[in-house]
Amino acid sequence: MVNVKARAVGGPTESFKSTEITRRNLDKHDVLIEIKYAGICHSDIHAARGEWGEVHYPLVPGHEIAGIVTEVGGQVTKFKVGDRVGVGCMVDSCGQCSSCQEGEEQYCEEGNVPTYAGIDKYGEHTQGGYSTHIVVTDGFVVTIPDNIPLETAAPLLCAGITTYSPLKRWQAEKGKKVAVIGLGGLGHLAVKIAHAMNAEVTVLSQTLKKEEDGMKFGAKNYHATSNPETFNKLANSFDLIINTVSAKLDMNAYLNMLALNGTLVNVGAPSEPLGVNALTLIGKRRSFAGSMIGGIQETQDMLDFCSEHNIVPEIELISADRIDEAYERVLHSDVRYRFVIDNSTI
Amino acid sequence: MVNVKARAVGGPTESFKSTEITRRNLDKHDVLIEIKYAGICHSDIHAARGEWGEVHYPLVPGHEIAGIVTEVGGQVTKFKVGDRVGVGCMVDSCGQCSSCQEGEEQYCEEGNVPTYAGIDKYGEHTQGGYSTHIVVTDGFVVTIPDNIPLETAAPLLCAGITTYSPLKRWQAEKGKKVAVIGLGGLGHLAVKIAHAMNAEVTVLSQTLKKEEDGMKFGAKNYHATSNPETFNKLANSFDLIINTVSAKLDMNAYLNMLALNGTLVNVGAPSEPLGVNALTLIGKRRSFAGSMIGGIQETQDMLDFCSEHNIVPEIELISADRIDEAYERVLHSDVRYRFVIDNSTI
Repeated sequence: MVNVKARAVGGPTESFKSTEITRRNLDKHDVLIEIKYAGICHSDIHAARGEWGEVHYPLVPGHEIAGIVTEVGGQVTKFKVGDRVGVGCMVDSCGQCSSCQEGEEQYCEEGNVPTYAGIDKYGEHTQGGYSTHIVVTDGFVVTIPDNIPLETAAPLLCAGITTYSPLKRWQAEKGKKVAVIGLGGLGHLAVKIAHAMNAEVTVLSQTLKKEEDGMKFGAKNYHATSNPETFNKLANSFDLIINTVSAKLDMNAYLNMLALNGTLVNVGAPSEPLGVNALTLIGKRRSFAGSMIGGIQETQDMLDFCSEHNIVPEIELISADRIDEAYERVLHSDVRYRFVIDNSTI
Repeated sequence: MVNVKARAVGGPTESFKSTEITRRNLDKHDVLIEIKYAGICHSDIHAARGEWGEVHYPLVPGHEIAGIVTEVGGQVTKFKVGDRVGVGCMVDSCGQCSSCQEGEEQYCEEGNVPTYAGIDKYGEHTQGGYSTHIVVTDGFVVTIPDNIPLETAAPLLCAGITTYSPLKRWQAEKGKKVAVIGLGGLGHLAVKIAHAMNAEVTVLSQTLKKEEDGMKFGAKNYHATSNPETFNKLANSFDLIINTVSAKLDMNAYLNMLALNGTLVNVGAPSEPLGVNALTLIGKRRSFAGSMIGGIQETQDMLDFCSEHNIVPEIELISADRIDEAYERVLHSDVRYRFVIDNSTI
């Protein structure tokens, strides 16, 4: 066991404090990573504040982790000291069920082990990326390609894979019209990735205030959803809509924008039920689906895709002392487009 | 114009009366059909009672039509006098849009022309199958294979295609677990068809009272949804669920029965919105979809499939005088499993 520095919250209404947590000694398949950067995901806020069910405090959030390998277990062959690596939303899974066998560890039938606020196979509470080091079994570590700076790599580990996976699965490609609801941390990556997949991309944002950014990221069209005319004008238009917004939206209005056989995929998770009219689905054989991050191999594929297409998120680098402030700004959508913690300041 | 006998309702609360309606003179692509049998679909009741929006009275419902060709227009080559033919839920479409070009006339971008309660290209109100004859353009007439009796062919034209199409599209096949919600007119055909496609079929019905029938139709399992244990036991089980029920169900409970990547397809159309939790979809990458009848070629494929697999609906043949009584019994789920009118009694 080693003690490492971290930033933790002690309860749902508390602010972040400097602390020390322990990381386990390396098992034969473990990798010790010196965390260089950790992204701030909206989920971190929900978890830190106990909004997604009870959590064990003190809690160290962070599941967008980029760093350098500093030590490896005896049977690790995939990584060596000095490698540039990443860790995303999960750090283990059963490895035996059909989901795991098919490389869909996120859907592990036993439940994957989340990077923080979970219980690992040693019975320990997992603690995340707002710390200087983490120990992760090699099967849940990915390689960050050389041309992606570590600070911009971090948000790809959650925001990147969460949008890449459904875009790939529902075939965003040349000739397809893809809309992205919300131009935040997830949305701006969805635009960049869908554009790189050669789809025609439309942003559906509350207002036009980020229009210039959206077009720069690769969108061809940008519409304000505060204007009801948008919904009439774009009825029956899209093959695929990725909804990155966690707030409750009028789903029927968005589903009605799908063309025949179109699919709207929710990657945001509003807590309230969403009202869906069966006739809206039936009338154009539409689907309303959900998608959760991606598998480990798929995460590596995503990083390689981003490397090939020079896709990196837009980030605002902050010191660890500014996490509380960053949370408030995320809640007010006041970030372009992802906060990343410089972990040297932890 | 020819006058033909029909049964019509004069208003939303009126009972059926004997009447005469006119059918147009044959255009060069038209087929005159002597209707032998017409199925009674739940939609007929909604339409007759004005529950799906205003309709023009008097109204002659009926979109499950089986009969014999008695005359053909000058350019009809596909049919000749004496042919056994069927007509389903639509009698025309624009023919030009991409849906029509792809054989998905039901999703015609201009809107297909429904068999009754629609307006055809001549500006006339369409009238359906509760009549002795109908004139339909040849592109919307299908051939009834010789081994399917006309009276049992009728319900295939709506109930059959409505269930066949999503089963085919979402690949009910060997190795797939398919559940059917509701064992009524649509549901019992869904069971027979999915079984013939070699899927493992489960019926989800309110009670076990039709269990023996369900097993006879090809189900391997039969569960009562009035028993909450059903939902626990069958969580994460099905690749595909076909929901034939038009009443409002607790969709999350049913969606939760889907396995990873599973899809629940609504073919019934409850008028109230259905509450869907995004997390239920996200947690197993599930989809909630809708499907509406099928295209004309697909309807022919369905009839050929039913012919090959000896699938016919279970029917109760009635005289035209009993339509009102049949409606009441349909509303009380008191039919095994489809009423068919003997049109010789009209």
